[in-house]
Amino acid sequence: MGIYLDNNATTRVDDAVVAEMLPLFTEHFGNPSSMHGYGAAVGGKIEWARGEVQKLLGAAFDTEIVFTSGGTESDNTAILSALKAYPKRREIVTSVVEHPAVLSFCDYLESKEGYKVHRIPVDGKGDLDMAAYEAALSENVAIVSIMWANNETGTIFPVEQLAVMAKKVGALFHTDAVQAVGKIPMDLANSEIDMLSLSGHKLHAPKGVGALYLKRGIRFRPLFRGGHQERGRRAGTENAPAIVGLGKACQLAREALPVELGQVAALRDRLESALIEAIPNCFVTGNPANRLPNTANIAFEFIEGEAILLLMNEFGIAASSGSACTSGSLEPSHVMRAMGVPYTAAHGATRFSLSRDTTQAEIDKVIEVMPGIIERLRKLSPYWTNQGASTAFQPVYS
Amino acid sequence: MGIYLDNNATTRVDDAVVAEMLPLFTEHFGNPSSMHGYGAAVGGKIEWARGEVQKLLGAAFDTEIVFTSGGTESDNTAILSALKAYPKRREIVTSVVEHPAVLSFCDYLESKEGYKVHRIPVDGKGDLDMAAYEAALSENVAIVSIMWANNETGTIFPVEQLAVMAKKVGALFHTDAVQAVGKIPMDLANSEIDMLSLSGHKLHAPKGVGALYLKRGIRFRPLFRGGHQERGRRAGTENAPAIVGLGKACQLAREALPVELGQVAALRDRLESALIEAIPNCFVTGNPANRLPNTANIAFEFIEGEAILLLMNEFGIAASSGSACTSGSLEPSHVMRAMGVPYTAAHGATRFSLSRDTTQAEIDKVIEVMPGIIERLRKLSPYWTNQGASTAFQPVYS
Ligand SMILES: Cc1ncc(COP(=O)(O)O)c(C=O)c1O
Ligand SMILES: Cc1ncc(COP(=O)(O)O)c(C=O)c1O
Repeated sequence: MGIYLDNNATTRVDDAVVAEMLPLFTEHFGNPSSMHGYGAAVGGKIEWARGEVQKLLGAAFDTEIVFTSGGTESDNTAILSALKAYPKRREIVTSVVEHPAVLSFCDYLESKEGYKVHRIPVDGKGDLDMAAYEAALSENVAIVSIMWANNETGTIFPVEQLAVMAKKVGALFHTDAVQAVGKIPMDLANSEIDMLSLSGHKLHAPKGVGALYLKRGIRFRPLFRGGHQERGRRAGTENAPAIVGLGKACQLAREALPVELGQVAALRDRLESALIEAIPNCFVTGNPANRLPNTANIAFEFIEGEAILLLMNEFGIAASSGSACTSGSLEPSHVMRAMGVPYTAAHGATRFSLSRDTTQAEIDKVIEVMPGIIERLRKLSPYWTNQGASTAFQPVYS
Repeated sequence: MGIYLDNNATTRVDDAVVAEMLPLFTEHFGNPSSMHGYGAAVGGKIEWARGEVQKLLGAAFDTEIVFTSGGTESDNTAILSALKAYPKRREIVTSVVEHPAVLSFCDYLESKEGYKVHRIPVDGKGDLDMAAYEAALSENVAIVSIMWANNETGTIFPVEQLAVMAKKVGALFHTDAVQAVGKIPMDLANSEIDMLSLSGHKLHAPKGVGALYLKRGIRFRPLFRGGHQERGRRAGTENAPAIVGLGKACQLAREALPVELGQVAALRDRLESALIEAIPNCFVTGNPANRLPNTANIAFEFIEGEAILLLMNEFGIAASSGSACTSGSLEPSHVMRAMGVPYTAAHGATRFSLSRDTTQAEIDKVIEVMPGIIERLRKLSPYWTNQGASTAFQPVYS
């Protein structure tokens, strides 16, 4: 196979995770709510998985974990729950660089449901404008939803501190930690974070499963209603195989955290510095000093991200420009725009996202071929020869 | 293994379905929205699956199928969508025997969101009160949500006819077909049904995947917001392995429909008539002339359903009383209560639900052991000896 450096889009399911799931399809396939042997075995496995998620998050109680269908469901559920639980508070605080699962949902709540949304800006490194955050907080705010780490740049927000500030005005604090879980240590029991979203397929578990952490005692209103599954917090027959897969993936991620912080970070740094050195007119986006260990987002000036990806694909290398959700559109990503990356560079922003499966040989191969790819494209680019902003190359987001 | 007669609760995933899913966990694991080879293969497989769901439903277009996380999500989404799309219509029509995914959701909408809910009653056979249905319809109704077939008794509602009536007042018609899909033929292209819910794990696909059929042209408002997946109708990374599994399961179900209507129905009839003949004081609930081919719900008078299930479990036979969602509670199911089944019988209602995997040897074994089980329990029952309604045996639902 090729070289897969698109782990922030989705990960390969670990073989050990598949092995854990398989018996639940055809052998222990019962409904855990049933009164017979086929169901009984399943319930215990789900509770084991809940405990593994708890441990990875450093949560105080396993009952704080509710299984969902993924990151988007968790994000939407958390925000809507807070608004329903505190109907007199009609404001939401979020950031300009959130994933669409938060941002588009907030846009909808603002335009169709009449809520006021504060979107906190970031600086050129992607760090949050703390003064603007502080100014947006008030007793009108039902919920703050700010991501733990950004999916495009890997930049980490100080969520523990943001949560403490949110609590002072009585707002609930939610964090979209879809990219952070399994990549950096967490200790939710000793934080003020009320709700947290995670998604299985970003940490070597399957797609279609995720979790929502709900700190004990917080007010919650379910998104789905029906059966009494998940203590009435998420109706629907439990997705037992995927839940058990998520449990196994969390166990593996906890054990592999030193690898993530050590070997993965070292390979990422090796890749990044080699490319910056070998290729003219490119730079790292986001905050290099405060990032996920696996992510490098490099802006290659005067060329198009999509063209880069296509040539990389010819060499069997998979990466992405923007997020998977916005690829296919011609606009640079909202994250690049929010950081004020010049459009001549934002268009060429390319995300390399590693995992514990990434090898040094793979990274060396990428280091070997990238300079040639960039050179080839720049030879074709009308913007490279004159090296200045051409009037023909207008930012679509002006 | 034992004898599994609880297929209305959940089914064993077909081996061919597992085989179809496996490569998507570790080989074609890409995000279908990505710009590289890992993603490209996946998109095509999802579209193949969409076509298979379309064919099983007899839908006119594959774009009418939206993948979801299961029956509950589909049901909740359909109802909420109609209410948001037609904000001036503040009434819902449903039946008293719906699954909690519809009924509990309607209870919530009534008690917390101020909608008016009409719950149409059924008669002793579980058939819908058509006069009450007609009377409930008006231009105030945004949506009718009535199930195709009941999960406890298998009784089939005349949904095509109900849909025609709903359209006359401009209401959308949704049907929870979670139990019906794959068990009886469907031809949605030639019906007035606007929306239909199905759930993978009821037809030998995995848990955690389902679909919502949306007739072309109807107004729709998504439940999840975020990325542009599913043409903007359901945000979140596609659960590719499970979607492909559902596609395969739909293909198999379409091919096996004659088996379902033939062999499965014949085995069900054999079981039912043998038990009715061999065991005194028991009767079939629901409408025997108008039922799913795989379901037999038999009420054994003067004993408790849970005790029956426990003894059956000793013989390795899995069945259920009420639905999986309500088991564990001491009340007879809302379906038995709605049909007016006397409480001395409702408590002993036992659902045998077969599948195409059920063999004649298994059915013969059940026929052999059930009379002894019932006799043993009745010997212990204080209500059997005097054979009348004891005052100690008060209905909890009086
Ligand atoms: C930061 C972030 N939040 C939310 C999501 C949505 O998760 P899912 O695709 O599991 O719904 C993603 C990835 O798609 C993400 O990167
Ligand atoms: C009639 C009916 N509707 C809805 C559901 C809910 O489906 P799911 O468990 O996939 O959410 C079920 C089964 O649980 C059902 O039998």
